[in-house]
Amino acid sequence: MSELIEYMQQLGQRAKSAARVIANADTGVKNNALNAIADEIETQQAVILAANTLDMKAGAKNGLDAALLDRLELNEERVAAMAEGLRQIVALPDPAGEISQINSRPSGIKVGQMRVPLGVIGIIYESRPNVTADAAALCLKSGNASILRGGSEAKHSNQAIALCISNGLKVAGLPAEIVQVIETTDRNAVGELIRMEGTVDVIIPRGGKGLIERITKEARVPVIKHLHGVCHVYLDDKAEKEMALSIALNAKTQRYGTCNTMETLLVAEAVAAEFLPELAALYEAKNVELRGCEKTCEVLPNCVKAVDADWDEEYLAPILSIRVVDDMEMAMDHIHDHSSGHTESIVTADYAKAMRFLREVDSSSVMVNASTRFADGFEYGLGGEIGISTNKLHARGPVGLVGLTTQKYIVLGDGHIRQ
Amino acid sequence: MSELIEYMQQLGQRAKSAARVIANADTGVKNNALNAIADEIETQQAVILAANTLDMKAGAKNGLDAALLDRLELNEERVAAMAEGLRQIVALPDPAGEISQINSRPSGIKVGQMRVPLGVIGIIYESRPNVTADAAALCLKSGNASILRGGSEAKHSNQAIALCISNGLKVAGLPAEIVQVIETTDRNAVGELIRMEGTVDVIIPRGGKGLIERITKEARVPVIKHLHGVCHVYLDDKAEKEMALSIALNAKTQRYGTCNTMETLLVAEAVAAEFLPELAALYEAKNVELRGCEKTCEVLPNCVKAVDADWDEEYLAPILSIRVVDDMEMAMDHIHDHSSGHTESIVTADYAKAMRFLREVDSSSVMVNASTRFADGFEYGLGGEIGISTNKLHARGPVGLVGLTTQKYIVLGDGHIRQ
Repeated sequence: MSELIEYMQQLGQRAKSAARVIANADTGVKNNALNAIADEIETQQAVILAANTLDMKAGAKNGLDAALLDRLELNEERVAAMAEGLRQIVALPDPAGEISQINSRPSGIKVGQMRVPLGVIGIIYESRPNVTADAAALCLKSGNASILRGGSEAKHSNQAIALCISNGLKVAGLPAEIVQVIETTDRNAVGELIRMEGTVDVIIPRGGKGLIERITKEARVPVIKHLHGVCHVYLDDKAEKEMALSIALNAKTQRYGTCNTMETLLVAEAVAAEFLPELAALYEAKNVELRGCEKTCEVLPNCVKAVDADWDEEYLAPILSIRVVDDMEMAMDHIHDHSSGHTESIVTADYAKAMRFLREVDSSSVMVNASTRFADGFEYGLGGEIGISTNKLHARGPVGLVGLTTQKYIVLGDGHIRQ
Repeated sequence: MSELIEYMQQLGQRAKSAARVIANADTGVKNNALNAIADEIETQQAVILAANTLDMKAGAKNGLDAALLDRLELNEERVAAMAEGLRQIVALPDPAGEISQINSRPSGIKVGQMRVPLGVIGIIYESRPNVTADAAALCLKSGNASILRGGSEAKHSNQAIALCISNGLKVAGLPAEIVQVIETTDRNAVGELIRMEGTVDVIIPRGGKGLIERITKEARVPVIKHLHGVCHVYLDDKAEKEMALSIALNAKTQRYGTCNTMETLLVAEAVAAEFLPELAALYEAKNVELRGCEKTCEVLPNCVKAVDADWDEEYLAPILSIRVVDDMEMAMDHIHDHSSGHTESIVTADYAKAMRFLREVDSSSVMVNASTRFADGFEYGLGGEIGISTNKLHARGPVGLVGLTTQKYIVLGDGHIRQ
C-alpha cells in the first residue's frame, strides 16, 4: 500500500509540474500536439488493435457480457474515429486566456476576469478505451494536465493509446507528463487519486451509478458528475397532439441506454384519454414496456401497474413509467420529488406555461417542445463533452472545454493603493 | 442526538420548500422584503441592543478577549449600518433569470443558459452579529433560502436580528422559512448541517482557519471557502521605486487583520539594496516587525532571520516576511510553493513581465501595480460579498450575488426530435 501511495504521489507531483507548462502553452502548440497525437494513433492502428485483441480475449475469458465487450472493442473504424475526434478538438476555440470586460472602478483600478485552466484533472472511467484519447484531448486543449484511470479490462488498449499520446506530446515539444495513464490495476489507486487534495483539482468520473456513488462518498477533491438521469417529459393539456406524440416517442426510443433518455412520461389528465392509446400503440410497435399509475391503467387496460420505485428508476432500457397528473403544477411537483436534475421537457403551445416551466424546473437542462435526447455537448454546440454534470456548482449540464476552466480576477493598477 | 437530527431535518425540509418560493419571487417582491427587514431593524434597534448587551455581559464573564468582544459588540451606529447595508442590496441588480445569448443549432433547436439560484445555502459564521442580516440579505436577493448558524456567544443578538428578518419577510408576503437561524447552540448542529446532501446546496463558512478546516474535512455538501490569505507582492527590478514603496507599505499596513493583507514581500535582487532600507524605515515607523531571508538580512542588519515556517504564515498582524529573489521567475516559483491562492501583485513597469505574471500566477486575484488590499467585493464592484473564495470551481475571488447563483441550459424547440 505504501508503495502505491508513493507511486500516486509521484504521479501527482509530475502532473502538477506539467500543469504549469500546459497552462501557459499557446493555442498553436496545443493544436500541434493534438494533431501529432492523431497522426500517431493512425500510424499505430495495428498496434492499438493488437492490444485491444488481448483485452477482448481476456474479457471473453473472464465472462464479460456482450454489452461490455461491445464497449471494449476497437476496430479500424473506431480507431479512425478516435483520431478524427482529436482533429475536431483542434478546430474548437481555446477558452483559456479570454479576458472578460474590464471595468474601471471609482478607486481608479481596472478589474476584469481571465479564464484559466483548472490545473490537474483526474478522469476515472470504465471500459471504453476511446475515452482515453477523448478525455486527454479535451483536458489538453483547455490547458489542463490529466491523470487517467481506465477500466482494468481495457488496460492493454489504454496503454497503447497512452503511448501514442505521449509520443504526440513529445513531437510537439511538450512534456509527456501532461497526460498520464495510471499503470497499476490496483483498485486502491482510485481511492488515492480522489483524495489528493492540493494536487488534483477536480475528479470527473464517467461510468455507472455504482462507481460514481463510491467516488462521491470517498472523494476529498471536488467531483463533477451526474449520478443518473431520470428525465421527464410533461405533455401539457395545451400540447399539440402530433408534436406531443412525436417528442414522447423520440425521447424514449431514439436510444435506450443514454442518460438523456426519458424514463417517466407525465400526461395532463385533460388529454390523457386522447393521447395515451395512440402513444401506447407507438411504444408497443417498438416493444417498450409501459408501467402506469392508476389513472394510466384505466386508459390503458393492458398497462403494468407502476410501483413507487418506478418513479425513481433509471431504466436505461425499453421500459417507461407513465403518470397522469392534474396539471403542470402537479407535474412540476412530481419532477421536484423524483427528478435527478438532468433534463426535463414540457410540450405545450401555451406561452405562460412554457415560461414558468423553463424558470421553475431546477434541472441542468430544461426544454420546451423538444426531445430530452438533445441534451448533450455536441447538440448544444460545445464541440465535445467530457460528461454531463448535475452538480449545481461550477459546470452544470454538458461540460465542454469551458467547463474545464475557471476564472480569476485580474486587477490593473498604476500604483493604486487603498485609502 | 436523534432529537437534534430531527430538528435539523425539519429545518432542512422547510428551507427546501421555501427555496422554491423565493427562487420564483419577482425582484420587486424580494426588494420589498429587504426594505421591510431594514425598517424592522431600525424600529427594533433598542431590542437588538438589549439582546446584544446580554451577549456582551456573558462574553465578558466567559473571558472573551478584547478583539472578540469588539466584533461581538453592536451600537446605534452598527445597527444603522446593518439597515443601510440591506438597502444597498436592494439597489443591486438581480442576477436570477438572466438568459445569456440563445444560439440556433443545426438541428433547429435554440440553446441558451438561464441564471438561477443555487437553492439552500448554509452559512456558518463566528461572533459578528451583523453577518446575520448581511448574509441573509445576499441569499434572499439572489433567490436562495438560507440556514444561518452564528457563534453561540452572539446568540441573543442573532435571535433578535432573526426576528426582524422573519417579520420583514411576512410584511412582504413571503414565508419566514426563507431565512432560518439555527436556535440550538449544540455544536453538533454544524456537523449535521454540512452533511445534509440533497437538502443544502452549498455551505459558506466565515471564520477562522480552525473552523474552516474542520468544515472542509467533514462536509459532504460543497463548500465555498478560503482557508487563509497568504498574499504576496513582488517588487520587480523594473518597478518604479516610489510606486513600489507605496504599494508595499499599503498592502501590509492599511489593515493588518484582513485576508487580503500582504504577508510576504518578494524583492528582485537588483533593486533590494536600493529599495529595502527605505522600506524598512517606513515599516519601522508603523512598528511592523520584519523577518527576512539571508540576503534581506545582509541589506537590513537589524532584521530578524526568517525560518521556513514564516513563508507559509498568515500573520494577520504587524509582521512581514521578506525574501530577495533572483528574478520574476523565482518570485513566481515562491508564490507557486507558498501562496494560499488568494491574491498576488507585481509592481513593474515592464509590459511583458506584467502580462506573464497576470497569466501565470494561479490565484483568485492577480494584480499589476496595485495593492492587494483592493481584493474585495466592494472594490471590485460586486456591491457586496458573502466571502472570498480560493476554490477553483464555481466562484473564485470575492463572491457576490452572481456567485450565489448557477446556470441551467434552456432549450427552445418547436417539436424538434433527435434524428
